Amino acid sequence: MSFVDDITAITQFIIELEKLKKVERRIKPVGLARYENSAEHSWHIALFALTLMRFAPQPLDELKVVTMLLLHDIVEIDTGDKFAYDANHDDFANEHKAAIRLFGLLPESCGQTFLLLWEEFEQAQSAEAQFAKAIDRLMPVLQNLHNGCQSWLAHGVSVKQILAKNAAIEQASPQLWQWLSAQVIEKAKEVGLKSA
Amino acid sequence: MSFVDDITAITQFIIELEKLKKVERRIKPVGLARYENSAEHSWHIALFALTLMRFAPQPLDELKVVTMLLLHDIVEIDTGDKFAYDANHDDFANEHKAAIRLFGLLPESCGQTFLLLWEEFEQAQSAEAQFAKAIDRLMPVLQNLHNGCQSWLAHGVSVKQILAKNAAIEQASPQLWQWLSAQVIEKAKEVGLKSA
Repeated sequence: MSFVDDITAITQFIIELEKLKKVERRIKPVGLARYENSAEHSWHIALFALTLMRFAPQPLDELKVVTMLLLHDIVEIDTGDKFAYDANHDDFANEHKAAIRLFGLLPESCGQTFLLLWEEFEQAQSAEAQFAKAIDRLMPVLQNLHNGCQSWLAHGVSVKQILAKNAAIEQASPQLWQWLSAQVIEKAKEVGLKSA
Repeated sequence: MSFVDDITAITQFIIELEKLKKVERRIKPVGLARYENSAEHSWHIALFALTLMRFAPQPLDELKVVTMLLLHDIVEIDTGDKFAYDANHDDFANEHKAAIRLFGLLPESCGQTFLLLWEEFEQAQSAEAQFAKAIDRLMPVLQNLHNGCQSWLAHGVSVKQILAKNAAIEQASPQLWQWLSAQVIEKAKEVGLKSA
């Protein structure tokens, strides 16, 4: 491939990414009346990871964690956002198809690297993927704790579901989960979330 | 500082970052009727950097470039977005004050690292900062080339201004700028941008 071929392919990918800015999540950012989109969410969790990496139980490849978080939701351009508490949350086959299409827009070496990172995140086998997944789960918990439990109340999520769904956070940092789960239980009482 | 002090400080910073999702830029994402916000923009350029790093004239610390891009606009929480073609675009004193306040929310070691990276980006002395700045400039050029030159037309920006303002891209990748500036000139004719 020539330089112009490469840069034309990259441009096409980058313009395609504009679509992630209109993929709506079920949660509203703290202090905003509108729903969050998946692009700004991805920015937020990448920075969150950079502040929290030191609390991981083992040293991590920071660039890998951040890259995973920046690209993990791109597939939603084709599939839409899945709410963590929906029954059909896991939709690997469709998301993988989307990942192949989207990363396939890039020059092969770059697209292949991104696809492998996306798969690694989804499979949650490596320490980096487990940490990145915990951060992705952690963010909406923090947002709910600061926005009156908006998305939990709107979707009838129970305390039991929250604690079960977010066990990945405990795996990444037991200390963090101890601190956080106590707050979830307290806040749940305050706003009247159902317990199970 | 104890773990709880650290994590409480990080949480405060992360929740404060929600405000960047309501800082509006002057440009609309391709295909969207609304203006872009600085949070989703930061996500987009971080990924753009990851695809383009191989075209830099020298090897770069990729994590540093990506981290700079993720945090460079955070100061806009206090100062608002500055349009690249505005006379008062450079407002270092106010932005620096905002950087000190915002990164000061974090545990000291992390906040200090971020502040130094923010300053390095602003001063554009290192190869990483120069590359990151070029990417930040490049994105709205690409968006304008694909959205009918929306922000250039809306603000009466001339071809001469565009070529002058984006010379940083040439410094980062002469090849890229040659490819891009030819497209700017062609597109400018098509939509009737003024020449000077």
